[in-house]
Amino acid sequence: MTHTDRLPDFLLLDLVKRALDEDLGGAGDVTSQAVIPDGTTYSAKLNAREAGVISGMQIARIAFHTVDPLLTVKTLIADGRPCKPGDICMTIEGDAKSILMAERVALNFAGHLSGIATMTAAYTAKATGTKTKITCTRKTTPGLRLVEKEAVRHGGGSNHRFGLNDAILIKDNHIAAAGGVRAVLERARAVASHMRRIEIEVDTLDQLTEVLSVGGADCVLLDNMDNMQLAEAVKMVGGRLITEASGGMTLDRIAGVAGAGVDYISVGALTHTVKTLDLGLDF
Amino acid sequence: MTHTDRLPDFLLLDLVKRALDEDLGGAGDVTSQAVIPDGTTYSAKLNAREAGVISGMQIARIAFHTVDPLLTVKTLIADGRPCKPGDICMTIEGDAKSILMAERVALNFAGHLSGIATMTAAYTAKATGTKTKITCTRKTTPGLRLVEKEAVRHGGGSNHRFGLNDAILIKDNHIAAAGGVRAVLERARAVASHMRRIEIEVDTLDQLTEVLSVGGADCVLLDNMDNMQLAEAVKMVGGRLITEASGGMTLDRIAGVAGAGVDYISVGALTHTVKTLDLGLDF
Amino acid sequence: MTHTDRLPDFLLLDLVKRALDEDLGGAGDVTSQAVIPDGTTYSAKLNAREAGVISGMQIARIAFHTVDPLLTVKTLIADGRPCKPGDICMTIEGDAKSILMAERVALNFAGHLSGIATMTAAYTAKATGTKTKITCTRKTTPGLRLVEKEAVRHGGGSNHRFGLNDAILIKDNHIAAAGGVRAVLERARAVASHMRRIEIEVDTLDQLTEVLSVGGADCVLLDNMDNMQLAEAVKMVGGRLITEASGGMTLDRIAGVAGAGVDYISVGALTHTVKTLDLGLDF
Amino acid sequence: MTHTDRLPDFLLLDLVKRALDEDLGGAGDVTSQAVIPDGTTYSAKLNAREAGVISGMQIARIAFHTVDPLLTVKTLIADGRPCKPGDICMTIEGDAKSILMAERVALNFAGHLSGIATMTAAYTAKATGTKTKITCTRKTTPGLRLVEKEAVRHGGGSNHRFGLNDAILIKDNHIAAAGGVRAVLERARAVASHMRRIEIEVDTLDQLTEVLSVGGADCVLLDNMDNMQLAEAVKMVGGRLITEASGGMTLDRIAGVAGAGVDYISVGALTHTVKTLDLGLDF
Amino acid sequence: MTHTDRLPDFLLLDLVKRALDEDLGGAGDVTSQAVIPDGTTYSAKLNAREAGVISGMQIARIAFHTVDPLLTVKTLIADGRPCKPGDICMTIEGDAKSILMAERVALNFAGHLSGIATMTAAYTAKATGTKTKITCTRKTTPGLRLVEKEAVRHGGGSNHRFGLNDAILIKDNHIAAAGGVRAVLERARAVASHMRRIEIEVDTLDQLTEVLSVGGADCVLLDNMDNMQLAEAVKMVGGRLITEASGGMTLDRIAGVAGAGVDYISVGALTHTVKTLDLGLDF
Amino acid sequence: MTHTDRLPDFLLLDLVKRALDEDLGGAGDVTSQAVIPDGTTYSAKLNAREAGVISGMQIARIAFHTVDPLLTVKTLIADGRPCKPGDICMTIEGDAKSILMAERVALNFAGHLSGIATMTAAYTAKATGTKTKITCTRKTTPGLRLVEKEAVRHGGGSNHRFGLNDAILIKDNHIAAAGGVRAVLERARAVASHMRRIEIEVDTLDQLTEVLSVGGADCVLLDNMDNMQLAEAVKMVGGRLITEASGGMTLDRIAGVAGAGVDYISVGALTHTVKTLDLGLDF
Repeated sequence: MTHTDRLPDFLLLDLVKRALDEDLGGAGDVTSQAVIPDGTTYSAKLNAREAGVISGMQIARIAFHTVDPLLTVKTLIADGRPCKPGDICMTIEGDAKSILMAERVALNFAGHLSGIATMTAAYTAKATGTKTKITCTRKTTPGLRLVEKEAVRHGGGSNHRFGLNDAILIKDNHIAAAGGVRAVLERARAVASHMRRIEIEVDTLDQLTEVLSVGGADCVLLDNMDNMQLAEAVKMVGGRLITEASGGMTLDRIAGVAGAGVDYISVGALTHTVKTLDLGLDF
Repeated sequence: MTHTDRLPDFLLLDLVKRALDEDLGGAGDVTSQAVIPDGTTYSAKLNAREAGVISGMQIARIAFHTVDPLLTVKTLIADGRPCKPGDICMTIEGDAKSILMAERVALNFAGHLSGIATMTAAYTAKATGTKTKITCTRKTTPGLRLVEKEAVRHGGGSNHRFGLNDAILIKDNHIAAAGGVRAVLERARAVASHMRRIEIEVDTLDQLTEVLSVGGADCVLLDNMDNMQLAEAVKMVGGRLITEASGGMTLDRIAGVAGAGVDYISVGALTHTVKTLDLGLDF
Repeated sequence: MTHTDRLPDFLLLDLVKRALDEDLGGAGDVTSQAVIPDGTTYSAKLNAREAGVISGMQIARIAFHTVDPLLTVKTLIADGRPCKPGDICMTIEGDAKSILMAERVALNFAGHLSGIATMTAAYTAKATGTKTKITCTRKTTPGLRLVEKEAVRHGGGSNHRFGLNDAILIKDNHIAAAGGVRAVLERARAVASHMRRIEIEVDTLDQLTEVLSVGGADCVLLDNMDNMQLAEAVKMVGGRLITEASGGMTLDRIAGVAGAGVDYISVGALTHTVKTLDLGLDF
Repeated sequence: MTHTDRLPDFLLLDLVKRALDEDLGGAGDVTSQAVIPDGTTYSAKLNAREAGVISGMQIARIAFHTVDPLLTVKTLIADGRPCKPGDICMTIEGDAKSILMAERVALNFAGHLSGIATMTAAYTAKATGTKTKITCTRKTTPGLRLVEKEAVRHGGGSNHRFGLNDAILIKDNHIAAAGGVRAVLERARAVASHMRRIEIEVDTLDQLTEVLSVGGADCVLLDNMDNMQLAEAVKMVGGRLITEASGGMTLDRIAGVAGAGVDYISVGALTHTVKTLDLGLDF
Repeated sequence: MTHTDRLPDFLLLDLVKRALDEDLGGAGDVTSQAVIPDGTTYSAKLNAREAGVISGMQIARIAFHTVDPLLTVKTLIADGRPCKPGDICMTIEGDAKSILMAERVALNFAGHLSGIATMTAAYTAKATGTKTKITCTRKTTPGLRLVEKEAVRHGGGSNHRFGLNDAILIKDNHIAAAGGVRAVLERARAVASHMRRIEIEVDTLDQLTEVLSVGGADCVLLDNMDNMQLAEAVKMVGGRLITEASGGMTLDRIAGVAGAGVDYISVGALTHTVKTLDLGLDF
Repeated sequence: MTHTDRLPDFLLLDLVKRALDEDLGGAGDVTSQAVIPDGTTYSAKLNAREAGVISGMQIARIAFHTVDPLLTVKTLIADGRPCKPGDICMTIEGDAKSILMAERVALNFAGHLSGIATMTAAYTAKATGTKTKITCTRKTTPGLRLVEKEAVRHGGGSNHRFGLNDAILIKDNHIAAAGGVRAVLERARAVASHMRRIEIEVDTLDQLTEVLSVGGADCVLLDNMDNMQLAEAVKMVGGRLITEASGGMTLDRIAGVAGAGVDYISVGALTHTVKTLDLGLDF
């Protein structure tokens, strides 16, 4: 995992502008307009108030610079790096009103994304020493998928599909509509681009047997199985497919599931149930 | 609180389109394109899998209709109403591919917003029997403030400012920059629109005394005080200002703080730390 | 009133881009393309051709820099400052084609907004020596509300609501629909955020009596009353509510209405009937 | 002039949405949300309160239908038709909150555009009995050029350029930069599309002589001339070019200038100094 | 390949609106406004004037309905179906001005996309009787990738990556930067999502040998090889990887390259060098 | 024709952003993210691989700078200048990942637009020594009209209408709907702005006679005539109108048609059937 920005700033600009517009649009910051004397400057620190893994510094920087390109912004803890309480993540210097206008948006992004990175790191830690990776899902916050997927990577996790548009995942509905496992896999392979992976969900070992006999899939999603079933499934697959376990993957299940030998564990909660990391701006 | 839509659909369209674009943009739903036979139709149910308060049905309906205006969508549990496990919140009938294309976006919105409404309801329940109301903050998910604020209302909460643009909230930085409590309040009242409320944050009872002597504020934010201090503050205010308590307002503190007699308790966690409500689509 | 920019440039960019696109979109400036030799440079002055109060220099500067970031733009008369005929408000130096491309958009904004500031200053001058302030309404030019409200402030006026979204103003329709003055005020106070002011419109002194007896409002809008009625209303209110007079408030009525002692006079004409201030670009 | 819509609705949608968003964005209509009972319906009339020429009914209809497609909207006085005080221009029936949400935006557009149409009609009336037409300029309100140009047509006026992009107008700066009248006209004709007209501005009859001798222009703009000079210029042109008079064309000058025989009189004030037409919504 | 729309209309709306705005924005259709009497209706036919494969009927329908939802549009030849000269592809009935406003945009899309489908069909025909499929590249027209990729499918071709964002394609630069074939493949597999395919480009059989020995790729791109090299490469791969031939793949080379046994032939010219299919609207 | 940029960059930004978003949106460049080490820099050359006329360097530069403002981009062959195989058109230095992210978009624009410029130059060469100019049509690629029209000029061609919005072109449908040639021309002249040219299409010399007798047009479009008819038409017109020949104007017809003496030959193929110019990026 790289610790420098993987995404060009321009891909994040609209996201930041919408958030700033949400907070300032229509009238601007009526408090600062009223009470902060012109020419007041601040030297601010974006501090961590609890331990975790940082994400969102890139987007926080963009937020400050969108409001005021003349602010001096320095990132001290890069996205993907750990923080402990009291650490200074970023310093911002310049016009006081500009800093106050961007403060909440920068913190809302950074707290949310660092919360995701931190939780992901907690999950990945549970699988330490195994080959199993933690991966996210499409259960992301509407509008934030790109940056939430990055935050998962900052926390040491891996990314699943970014959307319905970039890989094939065949679920029970698809199997039923297409007329069974064989039909659906043949149809998918015939129609899909050769640049797209195909994953198929199975709920039982019988289904897995059928998937293995038909071929055509790259990955198999082992849904809602217990650890014994998972271990048996991994044995049956024998490395011919990538294996992924899903369904109720709480933190305390990870070690056991990883022990069953699956390649990936997908965890919706990484992005659908986010506890913000406590960050604050001090002047 | 009304149980019908308070916001016109058109204000939510861009939000929904961006979320759908995030999931489908570039190539569409490559799985359904490949394996669902043309003409397949579904009769789907959006079910609650745990108890809570529903929010996001309006936006879920818009999502289904944006993908396919011909879908028949019926809302059975309106936003702001409670649900229990197994309840059918919404039914959707029509083209299978259309339903599958909108499914995840609809669920991501509805799960997130119902999670907020449910948590808000838990907080408001703790203040039952008092005059104290629970209110949210600006610590919202970037891009979702409008609907998250609605979800807080669906859960029985009240809304604080929607942005820096619609009311004045004077914090310690503002006081320092303006040269003290008297200066900041006089300046704010002189400059602010007569249609804007002014709230000022105090950390000590001494500050409160000064605020009361100066006048000009509508509300006072009592920050990080314990219950005894809060009760004393309420007594000092004597109904001349609206009182709001904030700072570390976890669920188990609410009864005590409400008992101190404040008018409002503001809780950042309502929107910055969201546990999705478990909703699913069944066919 | 501050004489430096209160709004961050980024909030105005889309407004400027749309105006430039309106003038240039599709093909650009076909005249300058055809006849201005490459490399021609201009030193241009944006001059006042009549006396008034300047507004729109911030947006004019953004217009020139959007077309060409290399232009040197200097503002000599800041927004909110008076001008007299012949005054140089701004100087622009650089590529001739760039200056010609932005000229009309810059002037259209600046002339329109300075017209508003100038008219507002004329109204406020009529209330000199009284405590009465002049305030604008929501009768603004579609798309320009943010900058027109700023122009009112540049002219020494005060701002009323920025939209239906930031304060409560109860009119006769609302009273009728809610079932009377008591019902509407109780309902508004129960539902509204504590951070929103409530104003209620009255047409008669009897209505005012009812408003005062019910309580719950912050401001009262005294609509279409003559000066004697206004004076009586102010006396009845006795400082318990902010008073605002509205309805046919032409320039020659201001002194009399201010003499009646109201806190605010709202004037739709400030923004709905705008006489441009004569500004021009000289080379 | 047609009395039915000349522009497809889709070209006006963004304009209407921005105006509605300006008035409602962020939180919606907080007054109606609070106090109007669900299910309340209105039967509203958009009335003229003074005499004039109507414009903006198309855009008012779009505004009501954008907020609520279920409203029943009937246009009784089409754009381009005269109105007198008390005339009903449009009726709107349906949900009360929907009507209140769109009311101000609809009226702001319609009042502004009808103001332009009415003023244009006043100017054209002064030229009755002559061949002279009144035409607008690029001195329009930023963002509203398309509909303001339509309003000029609704008032019986003609349209000049819609932007720098659709015709060539050579002014003194262009002449100077290109090296004189002959050089600029030759260059313009050589470079310009054959589908673009060329107009050239002259301040003196000597300049006009040179323009006529060089050829290449379609129209000549006679700037800041008195009526005698204009008559002489018209005689010199002898029908070889279209003649347009401009510069300080107030209402009381029109008859005289038209008498001088020019083809067009261009009037910036039609769009840069707009007096709204008094329209209101009654329930 | 399905012959009904695979993409929801809403994904195509912005594309259509931008094209219509490009043709109509600023002033609308000034010809039809001037000369077509109100109330004129047309019954129009969109006809094929040469043989080919149709694509773009979905987008043409959206164009007509964006301009005027009341037009009656019937598609007679669905996207992906062949046409011969004189075939009626679509009929459009309704307001004459509406049809004329949308005509050119509809034809520009349909001619361009049908040109791509037709050329793709010519390529795929050359590989008839082999297992080889024709696939497109990222050498598409800026802004049109989504619909051009669909057009390739309508012509019987297959889709390669839709962007840099949905699969991994390792080229010579990547190999050099990462430090060789082994390093680049190991790094790609370690970092990439398990839902992404990896393809690697090789120019020589030696490179292919190395790729095969390292493993980790799903596909190999055989660049600029002659048919003998390709046949040898296919033999070396032995079905372990998907094989794709690229580089100068003109129509007359397809049969030979397909004969060499590769799985895919990628052809940039399908989308970078488009001959419009001659379609016209007759009234 | 100028060899420097005629359009301000800001008019092209959205076009470039959409193209980059199409290629990168959702996830970014997953290949470079995975395999290019941080800190790798490139010195790249954008080379011509065949002879032609360059267009699109301005937009290529914008693409590189949108992705990374720190890249050093130097244009060596300006838009409108010829290139031969091996010529370096542009150099780009800086971060390797940034260059790779923008590469394809820059090349897709430049190849497409240079293809148009090159083909236009081939057409104009056929008319060398005559007064006849080659002009484009509205048969452009949706979304690219502005830059395709520029490319035509870079190739030495002239521009026809940019849209339905900037000039009047009366075709057979218009004549029929308006009631004949006289009616349509009178109506057009009465309604049209004096700043708009009017062109009318004729298919026969009889129609031309009628057009000449009625007057009111600026240009006549001689559609689908052979060279003898064209020569006769030119003689009949006698310089009173601009003449334009259209209909099946392939490269081998140009010399003959130009010899017939028409002023313009319009060629749809310049923009509807584009062969990309082979350009590539070398490192």
